[in-house]
Amino acid sequence: MQRYKATCAYDGSGFSGFQIQPKGRTVQGEIEQVLRKLHKGQEVGVTASGRTDSGVHARGQVLHFDSPLMLTGDQWVKAMNSLLPDDISFSTVKAVGSEFHARFDAVRKQYKYFLYADAVRDPFKRHYSAHVRDALNIEAMRDAAAFLIGTHDFTSFCSAKTETDNKVRSLLELTIEERSGDVVLSFVGNGFLYNMVRIITGTLLDVGSGKLDAGMLPGILAAKDRTLAGKTAPAEGLYLWEVFYEP
Amino acid sequence: MQRYKATCAYDGSGFSGFQIQPKGRTVQGEIEQVLRKLHKGQEVGVTASGRTDSGVHARGQVLHFDSPLMLTGDQWVKAMNSLLPDDISFSTVKAVGSEFHARFDAVRKQYKYFLYADAVRDPFKRHYSAHVRDALNIEAMRDAAAFLIGTHDFTSFCSAKTETDNKVRSLLELTIEERSGDVVLSFVGNGFLYNMVRIITGTLLDVGSGKLDAGMLPGILAAKDRTLAGKTAPAEGLYLWEVFYEP
Repeated sequence: MQRYKATCAYDGSGFSGFQIQPKGRTVQGEIEQVLRKLHKGQEVGVTASGRTDSGVHARGQVLHFDSPLMLTGDQWVKAMNSLLPDDISFSTVKAVGSEFHARFDAVRKQYKYFLYADAVRDPFKRHYSAHVRDALNIEAMRDAAAFLIGTHDFTSFCSAKTETDNKVRSLLELTIEERSGDVVLSFVGNGFLYNMVRIITGTLLDVGSGKLDAGMLPGILAAKDRTLAGKTAPAEGLYLWEVFYEP
Repeated sequence: MQRYKATCAYDGSGFSGFQIQPKGRTVQGEIEQVLRKLHKGQEVGVTASGRTDSGVHARGQVLHFDSPLMLTGDQWVKAMNSLLPDDISFSTVKAVGSEFHARFDAVRKQYKYFLYADAVRDPFKRHYSAHVRDALNIEAMRDAAAFLIGTHDFTSFCSAKTETDNKVRSLLELTIEERSGDVVLSFVGNGFLYNMVRIITGTLLDVGSGKLDAGMLPGILAAKDRTLAGKTAPAEGLYLWEVFYEP
């Protein structure tokens, strides 16, 4: 048996999320079905760096799986991509030691959130970027974001459904870039709680639209109360961008 | 009755083309259904600058329609966009003289064709850009394109199903831009025959991949024989970009 580490991209708009489910089309389900074909009907499970929700995209999701097949990275990529549906693609596969674990060994993750401010919605962005009608105050959003960078208890910024007890995470980077109405928020952290990126984005959108003052952020963090933060921003703007491992 | 000129964008991937049909979802069908709602069940027909095929997109399709409603452009845009499905949007509406005709008055059209060259296909581009596996010789494609600019009989570059007898058209502009694998072909002309942009693109792809020599283009044009040109490039890369009228 050889363990393989794979990087894949998927357009989340046609999936009920990454994780396999009894009902609904999932990324894991499609990948495992292709692996089963390549292994003559034998089950091959994949383990991802983490789940993504329904409608959420990935540019650089990382997986591991074990296989008796000895193929080169290029051979794996070609074999997988020739059988996968066209909304998933493998970009790299490499042989790794059997101790490698896509989830437990991930040391940092980067998410990006895409949104656009325009009076008229753009049909081409409907699955790929969140739409807001009014212009945003990007400087105020950056001021608010600055309060979130660092190590904090992010209870106020995660779903009430979060199962982990320890809600302390380190947000290493949160940048906001804007070009002619297109806004990209980039998050790098050592770990993210359930819906954390989307709730932070929703809160920063309240700041950008003037509903919330940037100076309120330290108080919202300190209160550890989800109801004080903004709405969960929609899934279609969110991309799991890159997962980092120790070299 | 007031005649209105409207500009709209649509993501063609969910439509069986622009023109209304007994079966299948069409852009015209969706727009006319919304107009019917706004006119309390009364039929309001729209006339476009031209049809687009199944899977083909539009950034700036132009329509006209007649209505007893006296709304401002902004009011029309808001009313239409609040009722239209999210893969169509109206960008402008303005009152025009009753002699204005979206199809007969169009003096020039611009189409763009998007494609990308990459060993691995990109799930996010599957509906929006045509995929080719190998790098393209862009200079050779430009050399070939140069032979097509001007006024020619384009019989070799239109579908055998073309109904018009006169196949002479003026291609005013054909540019090819490339940036890190993304290639955009831009066509401006006084009129385009059925599948003309996609057949020219397919032929230029044969030149870019080395299957055809750029120097063959004058001979292919002169032969007036569809079988000598390249394949019809896929619908997903094609965008009706802009329609021009006399001021």
